[in-house]
Amino acid sequence: MQLGIVGLGRMGGNIARRLTRAGHSCVVWDRNEAAVSDLAADGSTGAAGLEDLVGKLDAPRAVWVMLPAGAPTEQTVNALAAVMEPGDVIIDGGNSFYKDDIRRAASLREKGIVYVDVGTSGGVWGLERGYCMMIGGEKASVDRLDPIFAALAPGRGEIPATPGRESRDHRVEQGYLHTGPAGSGHFVKMIHNGIEYGMMQAYAEGFEILKRKDSTELPENERYSLDMADIAEVWRRGSVVSSWLLDLCAIALAKNETLSDFSGAVADSGEGRWTVMAAIEEAVSAEVLSAALYTRFRSRQDHTFGEKLLSAMRFQFGGHVEQPVTPVKEG
Amino acid sequence: MQLGIVGLGRMGGNIARRLTRAGHSCVVWDRNEAAVSDLAADGSTGAAGLEDLVGKLDAPRAVWVMLPAGAPTEQTVNALAAVMEPGDVIIDGGNSFYKDDIRRAASLREKGIVYVDVGTSGGVWGLERGYCMMIGGEKASVDRLDPIFAALAPGRGEIPATPGRESRDHRVEQGYLHTGPAGSGHFVKMIHNGIEYGMMQAYAEGFEILKRKDSTELPENERYSLDMADIAEVWRRGSVVSSWLLDLCAIALAKNETLSDFSGAVADSGEGRWTVMAAIEEAVSAEVLSAALYTRFRSRQDHTFGEKLLSAMRFQFGGHVEQPVTPVKEG
Amino acid sequence: MQLGIVGLGRMGGNIARRLTRAGHSCVVWDRNEAAVSDLAADGSTGAAGLEDLVGKLDAPRAVWVMLPAGAPTEQTVNALAAVMEPGDVIIDGGNSFYKDDIRRAASLREKGIVYVDVGTSGGVWGLERGYCMMIGGEKASVDRLDPIFAALAPGRGEIPATPGRESRDHRVEQGYLHTGPAGSGHFVKMIHNGIEYGMMQAYAEGFEILKRKDSTELPENERYSLDMADIAEVWRRGSVVSSWLLDLCAIALAKNETLSDFSGAVADSGEGRWTVMAAIEEAVSAEVLSAALYTRFRSRQDHTFGEKLLSAMRFQFGGHVEQPVTPVKEG
Amino acid sequence: MQLGIVGLGRMGGNIARRLTRAGHSCVVWDRNEAAVSDLAADGSTGAAGLEDLVGKLDAPRAVWVMLPAGAPTEQTVNALAAVMEPGDVIIDGGNSFYKDDIRRAASLREKGIVYVDVGTSGGVWGLERGYCMMIGGEKASVDRLDPIFAALAPGRGEIPATPGRESRDHRVEQGYLHTGPAGSGHFVKMIHNGIEYGMMQAYAEGFEILKRKDSTELPENERYSLDMADIAEVWRRGSVVSSWLLDLCAIALAKNETLSDFSGAVADSGEGRWTVMAAIEEAVSAEVLSAALYTRFRSRQDHTFGEKLLSAMRFQFGGHVEQPVTPVKEG
Repeated sequence: MQLGIVGLGRMGGNIARRLTRAGHSCVVWDRNEAAVSDLAADGSTGAAGLEDLVGKLDAPRAVWVMLPAGAPTEQTVNALAAVMEPGDVIIDGGNSFYKDDIRRAASLREKGIVYVDVGTSGGVWGLERGYCMMIGGEKASVDRLDPIFAALAPGRGEIPATPGRESRDHRVEQGYLHTGPAGSGHFVKMIHNGIEYGMMQAYAEGFEILKRKDSTELPENERYSLDMADIAEVWRRGSVVSSWLLDLCAIALAKNETLSDFSGAVADSGEGRWTVMAAIEEAVSAEVLSAALYTRFRSRQDHTFGEKLLSAMRFQFGGHVEQPVTPVKEG
Repeated sequence: MQLGIVGLGRMGGNIARRLTRAGHSCVVWDRNEAAVSDLAADGSTGAAGLEDLVGKLDAPRAVWVMLPAGAPTEQTVNALAAVMEPGDVIIDGGNSFYKDDIRRAASLREKGIVYVDVGTSGGVWGLERGYCMMIGGEKASVDRLDPIFAALAPGRGEIPATPGRESRDHRVEQGYLHTGPAGSGHFVKMIHNGIEYGMMQAYAEGFEILKRKDSTELPENERYSLDMADIAEVWRRGSVVSSWLLDLCAIALAKNETLSDFSGAVADSGEGRWTVMAAIEEAVSAEVLSAALYTRFRSRQDHTFGEKLLSAMRFQFGGHVEQPVTPVKEG
Repeated sequence: MQLGIVGLGRMGGNIARRLTRAGHSCVVWDRNEAAVSDLAADGSTGAAGLEDLVGKLDAPRAVWVMLPAGAPTEQTVNALAAVMEPGDVIIDGGNSFYKDDIRRAASLREKGIVYVDVGTSGGVWGLERGYCMMIGGEKASVDRLDPIFAALAPGRGEIPATPGRESRDHRVEQGYLHTGPAGSGHFVKMIHNGIEYGMMQAYAEGFEILKRKDSTELPENERYSLDMADIAEVWRRGSVVSSWLLDLCAIALAKNETLSDFSGAVADSGEGRWTVMAAIEEAVSAEVLSAALYTRFRSRQDHTFGEKLLSAMRFQFGGHVEQPVTPVKEG
Repeated sequence: MQLGIVGLGRMGGNIARRLTRAGHSCVVWDRNEAAVSDLAADGSTGAAGLEDLVGKLDAPRAVWVMLPAGAPTEQTVNALAAVMEPGDVIIDGGNSFYKDDIRRAASLREKGIVYVDVGTSGGVWGLERGYCMMIGGEKASVDRLDPIFAALAPGRGEIPATPGRESRDHRVEQGYLHTGPAGSGHFVKMIHNGIEYGMMQAYAEGFEILKRKDSTELPENERYSLDMADIAEVWRRGSVVSSWLLDLCAIALAKNETLSDFSGAVADSGEGRWTVMAAIEEAVSAEVLSAALYTRFRSRQDHTFGEKLLSAMRFQFGGHVEQPVTPVKEG
């Protein structure tokens, strides 16, 4: 099957490669010409621009946009819509905000163009492992694109079947799911990322408590010097907290148990923020997902105005002088 | 190798079975005689009491206590110590508080008896999958018991090796770890359970946001009716949030997507509480692990006094009358 | 000075009364005719509709809209703008979302009409105590309206002066502040309400810990039966936590120490939600303000889907059966 | 009435001064001789040591210990008990952990000595404003000491009476309360401090959101440069969030609006930690009180191990390289 792909970064490039390996034909474009040439060398057809790319596809066309959320995706979707025809499909495989999907789908529908949003998990490991996909949009179009999704998905692999799913749609067990109408794919992916924040933070807090168990502030007979790398490794093996994220912890800790290569200033992406906002709109108490987000916010600050205000109040009511402290350094 | 086992509940009984299958000899006792007979039928040697059990073992003996933390474990350890000899080992495989381990180990050391604490993860699945074990105590005794731990551990299985561990202790990859001195096994297991609380809560919040996305309080074009069972399943396949706990979610949701079999009043065990207390002692900000614990506390309440006080203040300052509401019912 | 007032609920009616008492002339309208008659009996001039109200004011006019945020305010502002003239001022004294203010101010500016947003704190006590006001909009118009704000404000009263403010704008000490351009008044009021949520929750949690100190789950010699009403009262007198909210707690607890008149299902308003969203937009870690909001969300639920999922996971991995519990009843 | 006072720091010294001014006789000691001389110059009788101090008091004696919680208080209580007689009273006015009070009271009771614990709020302002006191211990002794408490308490002052308290104990309105048996005074004071943490954090978060509303990361038309000092001041005047802590914020911000004198590394004391632990023992969900404590923990760290682990996971799964960031500096 033919697929146009716009945006050949880490994700877009590997999606083209995985599809080409599976026998599909990809027509690709990126404003970075070198990325186009690299993919062309790997079996895709390079295009000279969006119009050229659309021209090289047979109708009804499908073009996968794999760009940062916001302006880059918005502009590309609009530019594609201007040169595409009724019956064509635009797939947004990035991390767009689902309300943008709803708006775009409605607007494109007027032109007869179908908009499909695909939340794509798998990161740099996806080329080999495949991509877990959550797909929103009209059923007929999603069904037509099934060969693409099937090729990108990880497939059943060694993962044991869940009992009780015998009579259900077996595509889900390949690793892709039609979640519902436009926007629902990105909505489900957004919550997926919110959960990811929460899980990561659970490990982060747990390992920090382990790490600081050798603190000299504790009674001497209650201190332990624990081996972070070994603990991460042993938990991978039969424990309740085993997960793919723990596998990644184990890799990082085996390489450098002090994690001294990392500053600890942690970025956050739109999905973490949007997940909390969605929770608030639904009146869901999302303590853990919020706390995970807030930790990242705080990690990028030196001292906050709020903390200074705490010190100022303490000084006022108790004459407490918070020393102009040298911050505690973390191993 | 010979091992005494006291406490033949779900965990203790399966430990005896797994050891017997691996060719070890177990001498077992429980105050429930039927449990003893069952195990005897499965290849263990039944004992008539603690003293009989100790008498049936050759010195230096090792007895594994698998009882609820607190008084049951404490009393049994003391009773065993009274009939055991210098050089013998008492293993506490339950979920004792690590400060109790430190105290017991010091006290038994005076009698020449060695105390080993084993944090054991694996639950009802351990008989088949093996148990992930975190072991605290003196190295010489832990090494002597290695055949027992090796038989109980899951072994390397299909789980891929972590790069960079080639020169490290390979027993860790079998699923057991000597974590350090007495108490450290249970300390690491305690933090493991704390992380487990946090991960579970991350899934719980995420799925709740998904579930309530069909709320009539949302704008009509932003509502989705999402399939909880399919979402859990698809995330098992190549996504960043895949984990063993997610596998369990998928099983439960495939069986009954509304989870109507469950009341939602969630128990908590000592480890969740102790983890937060340990964080506080070390001055670690453990937002996620605390929030996971607090959610369980709140889940067991109808309305709290604190919430009534909020209503009372609102009534005072704004004349807000909170209706004697019929609580919102959850699907 | 003349002022039109639209919306004669608890707040709008008392604002008209306080202004009339101070010698200002109010022209008032509400779709509830009885409210108009009541105010007319109290010295205001009743109007028969928006157009009549505007007609009864001399240019340049000022009309204070005191309606629920969202559609009611939006429609009234638009309807007023249609019958007002360049140079006139529309004051939104309600709890509008500040981004709506920014939009409205820009749109009205094109017609030469000035939009002023006033965050108004004081609740049912405002008629006697006066209203604390945070005012956004163009300086010239805010200055022109000064007699209105001065009359509504509480004035200096018995509250001691803050040292170091001698050279600053003394109107602030009367209880009103020009915070900046359009929207900033409601933004500051919104954060005010966010802080209020946090403070209320701090008291709620503290009193709940006091209340449950007689729990039979605690060791018998560590239980206390504490008197909630006396504790709230004593803290009003020289303690660090004294506040107006604590005064309200003391009143409520003196009346009924068990608070049995209140269900404990606590409503939340837009400001609490918007505050958290503003924090997220600014990447501020707002744990306390979020937790205060989430507690209210949770207070309105029976059991959540998330909590059922926790139970379901626990059942899967440990065979834990959460009893179909009768929820713990709170005194 | 006579009172011995041991520990003449900021609190103990001012307590002696306030009592002397009210006509009571204080016999004072501190290991710092200059503190003793200072108080002697202010009307107290200096003692040369504990035994001398006890000798200078008539039986039945009362000695107020005002020392840091933990070892200093413990040792002094024991040393006093060794030289005091049946019927004497030891008052611990510091911030002891209430379980220590329970233990000490039981142990002193065997010797016939009465132990009274007084939670004392008021800080550096107490000499002028008086001290709010929460008093635990046997009623007879607390009643006997009433003149002391009455003199230390702030008295009714200008604070309006709470309606509905007419038939209740009027001493509460003077600012002191007999809370119950030994330990209960410190327990109530501990919760008081926990609430204080939560309130302070509510202000800190609110002001931080206000402060960062000028962030260049926000859309240009949604930015405000707000005046922190004026906002704090206006809220003191008729708003729902007025409080003594807000008065302190207003003083600090009027002096230096950027708070640049404060590092923002905020200390925490035992009470904040004990409050959270008490909540956990009672299974109370204390999100806000915990978050307030955790913010202080985090404020004293540079980057945490947990945050580095987040970065390490992100690098593993997404190839995200967190730059060795220069931390964002706060105004």
